[in-house]
Amino acid sequence: MKKQTKERIILGIDPGTTITGYGVIRDTGCGPELLSIGFIDLTKFGDHYVKLKHIFDRTTGIIDEYHPDELAIEAPFYGKNVQSMLKLGRAQGAAIAAALSRSLPIFEYAPRKIKMSITGRGAASKEQVASMLMNILKFKKPDMELDATDGLAAAMCHFYQSGKPSGNSRATSWKQFIKNNPGRVK
Amino acid sequence: MKKQTKERIILGIDPGTTITGYGVIRDTGCGPELLSIGFIDLTKFGDHYVKLKHIFDRTTGIIDEYHPDELAIEAPFYGKNVQSMLKLGRAQGAAIAAALSRSLPIFEYAPRKIKMSITGRGAASKEQVASMLMNILKFKKPDMELDATDGLAAAMCHFYQSGKPSGNSRATSWKQFIKNNPGRVK
Repeated sequence: MKKQTKERIILGIDPGTTITGYGVIRDTGCGPELLSIGFIDLTKFGDHYVKLKHIFDRTTGIIDEYHPDELAIEAPFYGKNVQSMLKLGRAQGAAIAAALSRSLPIFEYAPRKIKMSITGRGAASKEQVASMLMNILKFKKPDMELDATDGLAAAMCHFYQSGKPSGNSRATSWKQFIKNNPGRVK
Repeated sequence: MKKQTKERIILGIDPGTTITGYGVIRDTGCGPELLSIGFIDLTKFGDHYVKLKHIFDRTTGIIDEYHPDELAIEAPFYGKNVQSMLKLGRAQGAAIAAALSRSLPIFEYAPRKIKMSITGRGAASKEQVASMLMNILKFKKPDMELDATDGLAAAMCHFYQSGKPSGNSRATSWKQFIKNNPGRVK
């Protein structure tokens, strides 16, 4: 009897008031698949509220397009100062509100945890994280800011962290384990 | 010819992850009228996301009930530490996102500015602010937390700050000025 696998879609987002990166992956049960990667460019908007509205509206739009089952969010817990944390908190609040209004469960990951999860090194550079993601999810260097991959990295981190990766996680061989867990073994 | 006055409704909100106070006033052109005062009690919810969802949902509900023209928000720019500012920023972000999703213009006021506007003293106590609000808007001590009046105070601050208070602001007499501007003259 074929083992049933439960497919799920994960939206990863890295909220910021300059660039908000996002990525959508599907956990098919046979490893992760890239559905979408992109970023919300907020540099063109001077007004703080217009930025927040864009984060809210675009996050809602992405959720309505891909119907993710879970939201993974990159959430730094420390910042330069209280001013920057207040701005970051508002950006996170707008993205989280969009997810909550669609009843998505939310999972937060610290930047270091995300880097560790993707590359095995908490102090990895953005380039190293992007390179590893391209390798795992088989896509070419996107014509976009590196920050855009941070959202995707959050999604992949959640994929690795949330219980057994993929449905058929009870690998029967080392070869199968490597197949089920691309990027975990180097 | 009777002078036309433009009625407007102001929602004031003081977002917080313990208590979120709110107040709704109507600027009739003959001074402010209290429509609603209340608070969202978040102490009963342990989960941070449930709190944010309540702030978002309740703010949306109040907007849909009273159809305010403007949102005034109490927004401290300084806090104890980056942790508390991140939490406050998220609460603000959830309330702001609710207002933005209904296309409300948003006006922020620092706590000191609000107290100054209501009582004439930036260092006034919560009790003094509440007492002055009850006097101006002719309501009795509400059976609720004092924090609840902070949202109403934000609405009243915006009422005073946003151009000439009330439509017929060109008072023809001192008596008329006092009538038009309750609380400004002591």
